[in-house]
Amino acid sequence: MHAALDVEKIRELIQSRDLAPLAAKVRSLPVPAVVAVLDSLTIDDAAVVFRMLGKDQSVEVFDDLDSGTQADLISELGHSEIADVFAALDPEEQAWLLDEVPAAVARRLVSSLDRAEIEAAMNLLGYAPGSAGRRMSPEVIHTSPAETVGELLARVRGHEDGMDMLCTIPVLERDRTLVGQVDLLELMRHSDDTEVGTVMVSEPEFARTDDDGEQVARHALDEGILLLPVVDREDRLVGILPIADAARIDRDAVAEDQARAGGTEPLRRSYLLTPIRQVARARIVWLLVLAISAVLTVQVLDLFEATLAQQVALALFIPLLIGIGGNTGSQAATTVTRALALGEIEIRDGWKVAFKEIRTGLLLGGLLACLAFLIASLFYGTDIGAVIALTLIFNCPIAATVGGVVPLVARACKVDPAVFSTPFIATFCDASGLLVYFSVAILVLGL
Amino acid sequence: MHAALDVEKIRELIQSRDLAPLAAKVRSLPVPAVVAVLDSLTIDDAAVVFRMLGKDQSVEVFDDLDSGTQADLISELGHSEIADVFAALDPEEQAWLLDEVPAAVARRLVSSLDRAEIEAAMNLLGYAPGSAGRRMSPEVIHTSPAETVGELLARVRGHEDGMDMLCTIPVLERDRTLVGQVDLLELMRHSDDTEVGTVMVSEPEFARTDDDGEQVARHALDEGILLLPVVDREDRLVGILPIADAARIDRDAVAEDQARAGGTEPLRRSYLLTPIRQVARARIVWLLVLAISAVLTVQVLDLFEATLAQQVALALFIPLLIGIGGNTGSQAATTVTRALALGEIEIRDGWKVAFKEIRTGLLLGGLLACLAFLIASLFYGTDIGAVIALTLIFNCPIAATVGGVVPLVARACKVDPAVFSTPFIATFCDASGLLVYFSVAILVLGL
Repeated sequence: MHAALDVEKIRELIQSRDLAPLAAKVRSLPVPAVVAVLDSLTIDDAAVVFRMLGKDQSVEVFDDLDSGTQADLISELGHSEIADVFAALDPEEQAWLLDEVPAAVARRLVSSLDRAEIEAAMNLLGYAPGSAGRRMSPEVIHTSPAETVGELLARVRGHEDGMDMLCTIPVLERDRTLVGQVDLLELMRHSDDTEVGTVMVSEPEFARTDDDGEQVARHALDEGILLLPVVDREDRLVGILPIADAARIDRDAVAEDQARAGGTEPLRRSYLLTPIRQVARARIVWLLVLAISAVLTVQVLDLFEATLAQQVALALFIPLLIGIGGNTGSQAATTVTRALALGEIEIRDGWKVAFKEIRTGLLLGGLLACLAFLIASLFYGTDIGAVIALTLIFNCPIAATVGGVVPLVARACKVDPAVFSTPFIATFCDASGLLVYFSVAILVLGL
Repeated sequence: MHAALDVEKIRELIQSRDLAPLAAKVRSLPVPAVVAVLDSLTIDDAAVVFRMLGKDQSVEVFDDLDSGTQADLISELGHSEIADVFAALDPEEQAWLLDEVPAAVARRLVSSLDRAEIEAAMNLLGYAPGSAGRRMSPEVIHTSPAETVGELLARVRGHEDGMDMLCTIPVLERDRTLVGQVDLLELMRHSDDTEVGTVMVSEPEFARTDDDGEQVARHALDEGILLLPVVDREDRLVGILPIADAARIDRDAVAEDQARAGGTEPLRRSYLLTPIRQVARARIVWLLVLAISAVLTVQVLDLFEATLAQQVALALFIPLLIGIGGNTGSQAATTVTRALALGEIEIRDGWKVAFKEIRTGLLLGGLLACLAFLIASLFYGTDIGAVIALTLIFNCPIAATVGGVVPLVARACKVDPAVFSTPFIATFCDASGLLVYFSVAILVLGL
């Protein structure tokens, strides 16, 4: 409520070009209020407001913005306006932003960092996009098996980071090999002269830098691991993944999957703030892919134009039949894509999946066929009823099997199953459904 | 790899009915290995293996199982076999299972609890299903502003729970009103005689018992809140939500959304382990809803049978046009459903959404119309080309607007947008698309 009033007030001030009262108003607000205001303004207005912030305020505010707003704002603002803010970010956020903004802006940004900062950001950029290495944070504090609990606790007390970065502490050998992990509670429960080596958990869970970032994040969330150590191929600690970062990675992955399952790319900023042409751009590629592949259905129907002319009633059931086929296919694809994501099945389970989907499809097709025969016979005669029933019995297993196997093929080809499956299955099920339908019609009706 | 070998070995022993070596094998495995085995056996086999476990082992194993396996196993096993295991669970897990299993089984289970345990579970069951109250854990430890850091730390040290439950500690007034929160790190950084009131964070974030559990969980994850206090309407602490539980709630919600977006109900257990008839059951309801509503398309086409008979070529474009309409609608629905879930838009933004989608639809329809006119005119003449182009220009804005507004209507009617939108939009876009198509055809072709 409060935030909505701020936004209205600030929008008015921007429109009236009252910059002095605008600056006063903006500087008087607490950080979360400014963040809420910026996240709900168009990017042009947000840039105007951001310029009004004091230096310290601007760093804090920027840190808390939506990732989409951050990237857009960096591209919008001049170099001098953003250089300090960028330099004050954590290395993994710098690396993330360098990925997101246009290359020219990225070059400008890097030039604003000093040598050590560039090195920290570039270290992260050295890992493949999407890998755990790219998304980890540099480690804050580590200990060795020989350090005493008292010494370690003194160092922890002196450190300025919060619980999110310090709740568990990695234990390293001298060559940085990860040998254990110890949490604050465990440390507190032992006397100051105990050696860390005797209270640590040895063989802790860890991720490798080249593991898939999304899978690592999901694992950390599933297991409730507050701070996951990230090691290189020689088991040496190179970073940590706090659970809050894991949650952010997982949320972005889910947003992308959901958008793609609905045939669109995810939007970078809030829906109402995204201009029409950007919304359209997120959708047009998918729509074109689907439209172009739908041309196949026109060609299939073209083959049967003579049959259609003899028996126009056949046309009435085209949307119904391809609708059922398409749905059967996408149901199977959804289940299998999910099972793949959870690691329940692997590529080599292809035959099991196919066999399972053929039988599921037969069961579903059989049930629908009985129902369709009863209803269609009543209104259009038993001939048409039989054609529709037989089409369903043949087509549901085909659609289910293709829907189940395509995500596995996509995974085998290293393509995101969610991206590849939707257009392919829709096209294939439509075309194969029409082929089955007219073949059955020609046979049964003797056309 | 190791787990796969165990599973194979154990399956063989079950099939050969060699129960003595089976028991020996199962009891020799560590808890995570037994969990992996049970989660990958059919439920009948899993029940056989579970019966072989030692008493302590069975409690630990049950605690770590997939929630689907837990519920199925409880329904499968006899009362005496599960009573102790159930009694040893945390109250919030007991409450969750009582929701999941058939009523008769639930009654049997409750009878296995003693008075205090029943009270704890029933307290949670008193909150509405899906509410934050239903999903919270009973609080482990709390403090008051007047307690000293030393006293509190001594109590924390003496407690047996882990970091997940103790990382932050709620600060309560004598009447249990939540007045603050303090984390372990902050406590460690102050001397033992400091009063908690001077180091705590006042006005901490909290959830109310009747807040929506999924929204609370998502908020906790977004903000990285390790332990969220849950209060009743009088601001008195009644429970806590650890971030790992928030992650579990969010994952289940995402699984349900993804399944429903693909037109199926989520499966309770792993895909390959779920029998065909259960997979079919998860799909048939949606398929029937879609099939029955698709009967509307048959009726619309029936109206235009005479037109179709005059110009059979019109039938060729039916799948293409309803495909594009359906996709445009589902793209809009996906974007708006997501924006609703993130709280970016509310029901009262209906007009803004409609206006935005009309314009987006016009832009997309215009682009596709140009392309379609060029291609269709080439092969089927400019008349047909014009009919198709005009249909797209009218139909895309209609589909996009309906797709965008339906999730808001669903939310206003307190129905899950993801459940309601898919069948309604598919049916509406198909039917309206056909109406537009044939109306345009009659006008342009003068039929």
